[in-house]
Amino acid sequence: MAKKVNVGLVGYKFMGKAHSNAYSDVAMFFDMDAEPVMKAICGRNEEGVKAAAEKFGWESYETNWKDLAKRDDIDLIDVTAPSNAHKEIAMGAIENGKHVFCEKPLALNLADAREMLQAAEEAGVKHMINFNYRTAPAVALAKKMIDDGVLGKIYHFRGVYLQDWIVDPDFPIVWRLDKNVAGSGSHGDLNAHIIDLARFLVGEFKSVVGMEETFIKERPLTEVGTTGGLVAKATGGKGKVTVDDATLFLTRFENGALGSFEATRFAAGRKNHNRFEINGSKGSVVFNLERMNELEYYNCDDPEGLQGFRLIQATDPSHPYIEAWWPAAHIIGYEHTFIHQVYNLMQAIANDEMPSPSFVDGVKCQEVLDAVVKSAQEKTWVDISDM
Amino acid sequence: MAKKVNVGLVGYKFMGKAHSNAYSDVAMFFDMDAEPVMKAICGRNEEGVKAAAEKFGWESYETNWKDLAKRDDIDLIDVTAPSNAHKEIAMGAIENGKHVFCEKPLALNLADAREMLQAAEEAGVKHMINFNYRTAPAVALAKKMIDDGVLGKIYHFRGVYLQDWIVDPDFPIVWRLDKNVAGSGSHGDLNAHIIDLARFLVGEFKSVVGMEETFIKERPLTEVGTTGGLVAKATGGKGKVTVDDATLFLTRFENGALGSFEATRFAAGRKNHNRFEINGSKGSVVFNLERMNELEYYNCDDPEGLQGFRLIQATDPSHPYIEAWWPAAHIIGYEHTFIHQVYNLMQAIANDEMPSPSFVDGVKCQEVLDAVVKSAQEKTWVDISDM
Amino acid sequence: MAKKVNVGLVGYKFMGKAHSNAYSDVAMFFDMDAEPVMKAICGRNEEGVKAAAEKFGWESYETNWKDLAKRDDIDLIDVTAPSNAHKEIAMGAIENGKHVFCEKPLALNLADAREMLQAAEEAGVKHMINFNYRTAPAVALAKKMIDDGVLGKIYHFRGVYLQDWIVDPDFPIVWRLDKNVAGSGSHGDLNAHIIDLARFLVGEFKSVVGMEETFIKERPLTEVGTTGGLVAKATGGKGKVTVDDATLFLTRFENGALGSFEATRFAAGRKNHNRFEINGSKGSVVFNLERMNELEYYNCDDPEGLQGFRLIQATDPSHPYIEAWWPAAHIIGYEHTFIHQVYNLMQAIANDEMPSPSFVDGVKCQEVLDAVVKSAQEKTWVDISDM
Amino acid sequence: MAKKVNVGLVGYKFMGKAHSNAYSDVAMFFDMDAEPVMKAICGRNEEGVKAAAEKFGWESYETNWKDLAKRDDIDLIDVTAPSNAHKEIAMGAIENGKHVFCEKPLALNLADAREMLQAAEEAGVKHMINFNYRTAPAVALAKKMIDDGVLGKIYHFRGVYLQDWIVDPDFPIVWRLDKNVAGSGSHGDLNAHIIDLARFLVGEFKSVVGMEETFIKERPLTEVGTTGGLVAKATGGKGKVTVDDATLFLTRFENGALGSFEATRFAAGRKNHNRFEINGSKGSVVFNLERMNELEYYNCDDPEGLQGFRLIQATDPSHPYIEAWWPAAHIIGYEHTFIHQVYNLMQAIANDEMPSPSFVDGVKCQEVLDAVVKSAQEKTWVDISDM
Repeated sequence: MAKKVNVGLVGYKFMGKAHSNAYSDVAMFFDMDAEPVMKAICGRNEEGVKAAAEKFGWESYETNWKDLAKRDDIDLIDVTAPSNAHKEIAMGAIENGKHVFCEKPLALNLADAREMLQAAEEAGVKHMINFNYRTAPAVALAKKMIDDGVLGKIYHFRGVYLQDWIVDPDFPIVWRLDKNVAGSGSHGDLNAHIIDLARFLVGEFKSVVGMEETFIKERPLTEVGTTGGLVAKATGGKGKVTVDDATLFLTRFENGALGSFEATRFAAGRKNHNRFEINGSKGSVVFNLERMNELEYYNCDDPEGLQGFRLIQATDPSHPYIEAWWPAAHIIGYEHTFIHQVYNLMQAIANDEMPSPSFVDGVKCQEVLDAVVKSAQEKTWVDISDM
Repeated sequence: MAKKVNVGLVGYKFMGKAHSNAYSDVAMFFDMDAEPVMKAICGRNEEGVKAAAEKFGWESYETNWKDLAKRDDIDLIDVTAPSNAHKEIAMGAIENGKHVFCEKPLALNLADAREMLQAAEEAGVKHMINFNYRTAPAVALAKKMIDDGVLGKIYHFRGVYLQDWIVDPDFPIVWRLDKNVAGSGSHGDLNAHIIDLARFLVGEFKSVVGMEETFIKERPLTEVGTTGGLVAKATGGKGKVTVDDATLFLTRFENGALGSFEATRFAAGRKNHNRFEINGSKGSVVFNLERMNELEYYNCDDPEGLQGFRLIQATDPSHPYIEAWWPAAHIIGYEHTFIHQVYNLMQAIANDEMPSPSFVDGVKCQEVLDAVVKSAQEKTWVDISDM
Repeated sequence: MAKKVNVGLVGYKFMGKAHSNAYSDVAMFFDMDAEPVMKAICGRNEEGVKAAAEKFGWESYETNWKDLAKRDDIDLIDVTAPSNAHKEIAMGAIENGKHVFCEKPLALNLADAREMLQAAEEAGVKHMINFNYRTAPAVALAKKMIDDGVLGKIYHFRGVYLQDWIVDPDFPIVWRLDKNVAGSGSHGDLNAHIIDLARFLVGEFKSVVGMEETFIKERPLTEVGTTGGLVAKATGGKGKVTVDDATLFLTRFENGALGSFEATRFAAGRKNHNRFEINGSKGSVVFNLERMNELEYYNCDDPEGLQGFRLIQATDPSHPYIEAWWPAAHIIGYEHTFIHQVYNLMQAIANDEMPSPSFVDGVKCQEVLDAVVKSAQEKTWVDISDM
Repeated sequence: MAKKVNVGLVGYKFMGKAHSNAYSDVAMFFDMDAEPVMKAICGRNEEGVKAAAEKFGWESYETNWKDLAKRDDIDLIDVTAPSNAHKEIAMGAIENGKHVFCEKPLALNLADAREMLQAAEEAGVKHMINFNYRTAPAVALAKKMIDDGVLGKIYHFRGVYLQDWIVDPDFPIVWRLDKNVAGSGSHGDLNAHIIDLARFLVGEFKSVVGMEETFIKERPLTEVGTTGGLVAKATGGKGKVTVDDATLFLTRFENGALGSFEATRFAAGRKNHNRFEINGSKGSVVFNLERMNELEYYNCDDPEGLQGFRLIQATDPSHPYIEAWWPAAHIIGYEHTFIHQVYNLMQAIANDEMPSPSFVDGVKCQEVLDAVVKSAQEKTWVDISDM
């Protein structure tokens, strides 16, 4: 019989729901060596967290993460609180010898991220960061193809993560627009994902040059609390946007490939447009999160005259993770990537292996993020090795 | 507090899993007036059903549906057994005063379907048929647009449901290729879906003319039991395919629109290509199940020179069912349609209303299916009113 | 040095312009064994035809096609007049021993078409009909693939030709809506094209069943003359639409394949949507005239897990006709198909071979068109061999 | 009657053919105030140029451009020779008081380009550069939309021009890979186009930072002459590639928009993928040269729930240049952009106005190109105003 892993989840909003669903569903679809038990969910608002516990199916709830971290019946702390709380909670979990599963970004800056990694390593706990798009079957297929040499030597990675939810200048300041809470804007929120995908698929970054911009520098304030600490004027005044609306950068990878990255919240019409294209000496692949069940693939070795990008529906039983789901071309959705992450996490814990992606990946992603910020500020190329 | 509806599910394979997942997940995402309780799952193979009960989270299991139907602690019987068992099980459930949720097709022929509807109506139970694609948000959006007059008067419905899983002539005879078990081939399996979508979106059928074909008339036999009763020769001989590989038909709708329908399992490269296009006097819509989170829409009233089919990502909180899920452009998958069906079923039971689609829809779909078969056999147009 | 073929063109509107451009351009791009000389253009309105002669580069003009047909310096008569004039002009040309290149449809009905073919054969002249889409490189590539066995045995042809230019009920009666001039509506105009493509690619039709509809039965009249003979009321009254708005039919091909066809002018948003899909035992192809430089292709023999429809840009030098044009992926346009037709015509004349498609193809297309009309009227299947 | 403009064309290969076709066709489709007369074509190889003159329809030919430039019967010199000859020929034409139409890039470097512009301005001749993609109707439509304020304030320009013709390391050194002849590689060839489109659509560049790479540093040599001067070893040795395979850069525009640019010849599967996306405060547009008859458009003001990128077929009579061509959705091809350029040039000459784009645009494009090269070499941001 499968080992049990008792989970304590911090956060019960968007991410808390996605993680709860993953713990709840994973055993229905996957055979695992360890199964999660939904022990406790934690949030500061008792009414809210209590309702969430009931709705999502947690056995109990806590209103203080420190109490959660100390509970003997908890093996794993899952951190989905806002970014500025990641470090404190993860450190507390580690101190208490819990495994940690942390939402991205790992921390607000590189120093904090490194501290978290060091603590986790010294404590000998399992640590994982939720770069969930790695486990979209189409992305995992691309990874397999690259590892198998199907694309040959990689020349180009071209990634964008485009959204448009703050194009309206009257959209108010929410926590994601407050540097103290979010760390950064589109950069940490969106570039973090495509940087991780590039590392996963192409390899390590060598150097970067970038720029950042805040197009709308002031926005309406909102009420206290809802924005993570900003104090709204009674007059309904405006506050300063302290994060980037858009960040673009170029990179050279260690293996000689060239990369282009762009994150923005000002691309009208793009809702969740996380798209990358990889060109190699033997072929190319294209992925777009908005059609996450598909992978475009060009094979240079197809016969002359019959060549073209083919649309692979990444829903075939032969594709990663798919056998657990439905017959071919019955698509899966966004939250399935969380289920796959939890599956990988349970397998790692059961087999005493380090999960992937781990805090190491969180740190390496942060190195690139910070290098880009430095580059934008100093208007120069920055080597990752100097970070 | 929400009322409870105790569910007994018959079947634990592909459909049993999809239904189980729906019962398990629905309360995490939707606020309902009645919540399902996963009381018992039923299957003939004890080892199999016992494992399924555990894996899917059912409280108990049964190996005979008749025992299930008699249990006092069951309010609703959900029938996902092979098509030839639908009638017997549904009738048994009705006899015992249970509500019934039945997979499509309702029955193997029209007479049986009508008998089932009559029994359900006389017993006063709730009855629902699982035409699940109605609840894909993009389809529900199309329905809303049509009801709101956005497309104007409808002129054309153009539907295809294309698959390719038996293109290989060496693919063996499975239960879906055996008329005694499946009732029909591509017609009942695939056309049933697009007929229902056409009824849902355009209205009732008036007359049809069609043709059917079995391209590969003999196929390798498989072992006893796995094909629903066919006896395989020890020599590995061949058996006769007794269902259609492809069925096409034309229709006139009651409201004057024209329709074209095609179901086939011989469309190489099409895995689950359930696509329809509707043209009205004010605009058009296009849906494709393989990209089920999208709806194409053409608006005749867009300004000259700026007209074109627009790609609506049917993932906006304003779209049907979406508010329960994720932020815009975070897509949902195939199984979510089952969750939406269960949500609708629970609301109907709680509020003492008839769910939609009900057995009435199952019967009306069967009228069209049978009319097409008759038309193909007699090589003539058939009026639905003559069925 | 290349032989010269002296051309006389009847018609100077849309089709007259497309044909003129073809004669003017063909020698710049193709090496031919015979080159066209633009001798004379003919139209009833002297002012109009004179201006056209100058603008399009014709050496002279005529206002009566009979004068043109009698000119000794003319080798080939090209007929682009309205459909109801095809027969008379073609017969006159044949009588005078001229080769004939005729726009589709060959005639208004089968009897006329057969008479034209017989006359041309007896006179021993070259005869060609302008089913120009055969020479779109993507279509010609599909033909080559099928001939080479790349798609295997063909199971399905699925063709639609959708337009929307008369969705507005206030659009007036033009010649294309007048049966006396046009012969039929969407059927002869649009289905004629996809019937020919199906014959070209799949083979001969065996039997058909179809239906036709005129959604808007009366429309505003226009001035005398502009509608090909309709008399407009001084009061600005309405006239009866005498042709079909939409015609759909099903077919069985001689080789066992099944076909579905639809022509309509009531598909809002579809401007020139001539699309077909062909499914065979080894693969499929999809063509859409609106993206006429592309051919989608699915290969059943691609490796498992890497299969998918690939988008071939039919602009490769290895593709039919392309070497004459631009480097790969520099697309060509609609009128290029006319140039390809003229190229084929010139080669046939130079080498004393019958061009393809010839009047034989015009007759065979008309057989299918008429069979469908008969089927729609008699509400029954019609065998082509009975026509 | 229209004025005549006597044209002398230098070059008779790919570009010579495209220009010849433009002069030959323009009057058939456009009403102009001045019409081109195809007086003379010029090339160094007498046999080649003589055949071209005949095939393309030029009245005469020359083998030395200096002779052409001196001919009294020439009003306009059109320069399609390799890039390293642009300056000398254009200067010679200007000296002789001829108008000049020059292929891009204007010159191999900024100093030369400025000299050419100054000479042309001093001589008072008309000067035009062939940034032909400006006149693709979809691009011209985008320009009109932006000028009309349809997209609002522009935030982002995202352009790539991807090709793959030298992915194979055994592809030999041709003139485009030789810096002495071509000036640069993908940068001047491809980025030049998207820089011009960005200037045309968004505005002037303020500063850039970029990088360039030559992935394959040595390639097989080819025979003398065919590569524009490289001497091939008799042993079939290798030579050094002296231009960039790929060049990427970021930019800030004067108006505050951000831009991303990439040119490469190493994007497997991309043949002529010139694609840009522009995001503004009110909407977005997307163009892709491989589907040059289409423009995607997102309108922020579409009703909630019905928003999406719409696919405009830029073939409507209301669209720029289209009225001269075919009915809606009958697409045009690559060479039509040259015809539109010639039309604009003729109108400008007839009305004594400066054509657009002129050498001014050639110079400004070169400023950006050179700034990027400088940035790549010095690994720093470069202001355009410093060039």
